Amino acid sequence: MGKFIVIGERIHCISPAIREAMANRDPEPILKRAKEQVEAGATYLDVNIGPAAKDGEDLMQWAVKLLQENFDNIPLSLDTANKAAIEAGIRVFNRAKGKPIINSADAGARISYIDLAAANDAIVISLCSKSGVPANNDERTAYCQEMLEHGLSLGMSEQDLWFDPLCLVIKGMQEKQVEMLDFIRQLKDMGLNSVCGISNISNGMPKEVRPIIDATEMAMAIYAGLSAAILNPIDRRMMETIKSADVILNNTLFADSFLEI
Amino acid sequence: MGKFIVIGERIHCISPAIREAMANRDPEPILKRAKEQVEAGATYLDVNIGPAAKDGEDLMQWAVKLLQENFDNIPLSLDTANKAAIEAGIRVFNRAKGKPIINSADAGARISYIDLAAANDAIVISLCSKSGVPANNDERTAYCQEMLEHGLSLGMSEQDLWFDPLCLVIKGMQEKQVEMLDFIRQLKDMGLNSVCGISNISNGMPKEVRPIIDATEMAMAIYAGLSAAILNPIDRRMMETIKSADVILNNTLFADSFLEI
Repeated sequence: MGKFIVIGERIHCISPAIREAMANRDPEPILKRAKEQVEAGATYLDVNIGPAAKDGEDLMQWAVKLLQENFDNIPLSLDTANKAAIEAGIRVFNRAKGKPIINSADAGARISYIDLAAANDAIVISLCSKSGVPANNDERTAYCQEMLEHGLSLGMSEQDLWFDPLCLVIKGMQEKQVEMLDFIRQLKDMGLNSVCGISNISNGMPKEVRPIIDATEMAMAIYAGLSAAILNPIDRRMMETIKSADVILNNTLFADSFLEI
Repeated sequence: MGKFIVIGERIHCISPAIREAMANRDPEPILKRAKEQVEAGATYLDVNIGPAAKDGEDLMQWAVKLLQENFDNIPLSLDTANKAAIEAGIRVFNRAKGKPIINSADAGARISYIDLAAANDAIVISLCSKSGVPANNDERTAYCQEMLEHGLSLGMSEQDLWFDPLCLVIKGMQEKQVEMLDFIRQLKDMGLNSVCGISNISNGMPKEVRPIIDATEMAMAIYAGLSAAILNPIDRRMMETIKSADVILNNTLFADSFLEI
């Protein structure tokens, strides 16, 4: 896919400030976090409105319009268990800068999110999992194949299924990291796109250690072939690493000022 | 080879302080740099005495004894164009913590450094080059094969030839980085050891950018399969990245304090 794609994760209802802003339709806290992420290098913004059972459709439309009007039609990843809210968001979505991403399908209970993507010409993040964590790359491959065939049978382009290998936490699953990285390489060798939430690996680690190990694994994952990641673009070390990786992989031309671009 | 091997590069006659200390057989400046590197995590120390045409044998023996006596027989990489000096150094070398490394052979004028390693039961850094920079991985592979066969014909273990893919500077050879990384992976797949001078890639870049891009490429190279590198262990970001990579690759057990170990 060329340059590495950063999906900013910080518009998330798990944050009290964002939850309150969503409830009150208060633009400022959301625009502030959007601006920070865009300035730090996010290409997409994830918009997580939670379960949003009650007024999800209205909320998602409000958020999509707010963000796209203020940030030059920035493409968004729509993240909620409320499928009607995703469809509502897509109805008002401006595709000038890219398709909407639906976050997320899996090979189990959420397989129908692939139908949702097919019906709405969207990209769909497809977790290589059925129930819980995949045991190994055989399972990842099987789930990937199931979702790929399902998407293709619905007329999707294979490029619109972005497969998530599921990054596993190092504490407790230290021996599983290389296998996960090798799965990313396998996806690349198959010509498929991949995406993941890299900071899962450092869950439970001391706060000062997390950016260091996250950035190291990110460099490895990008060389392995990772196309995109959902992450916190305010993590300076992470963004420096991604920009450096784009230079090393010849996705962007080197300039002495490449970290500021 | 298990844990990643760091060869500290800072005892080098290109530094005026070290050159003067070597000329005067003054231990202090050399011991100071050795201590800094060992404390930062170097496993081996490179000792570069330059051409040392005049008194190389005496100088190398003095340096080997000085460093091994003060740092618990730390293994060393002996680095000079004076072959007699390398042999003299090996004669006084204590192997309790590892074999000496000879730095370095190539497939051209320096092929006889492999003979030197074979005759002295040493490891030899073997540059995958004949004259200048290899044009592509076909050339690297051919030179690697030549040197491997030469070493084996002399009775060496293949594990004692550490192949250097030659890291190329990004400025001017940006499109060559992935190929170099892929060559490291090829060496790993062949069961061969690899070593390189990673900071070559950032030659000519602004000083503040170099550690960032060096660390990113190092993470990629370690995932690709790099066994060892000659580098400056005082580069904190580099050492943090290497320690993180060892955790991710399950070469060392994770502990919250892994960066301090």
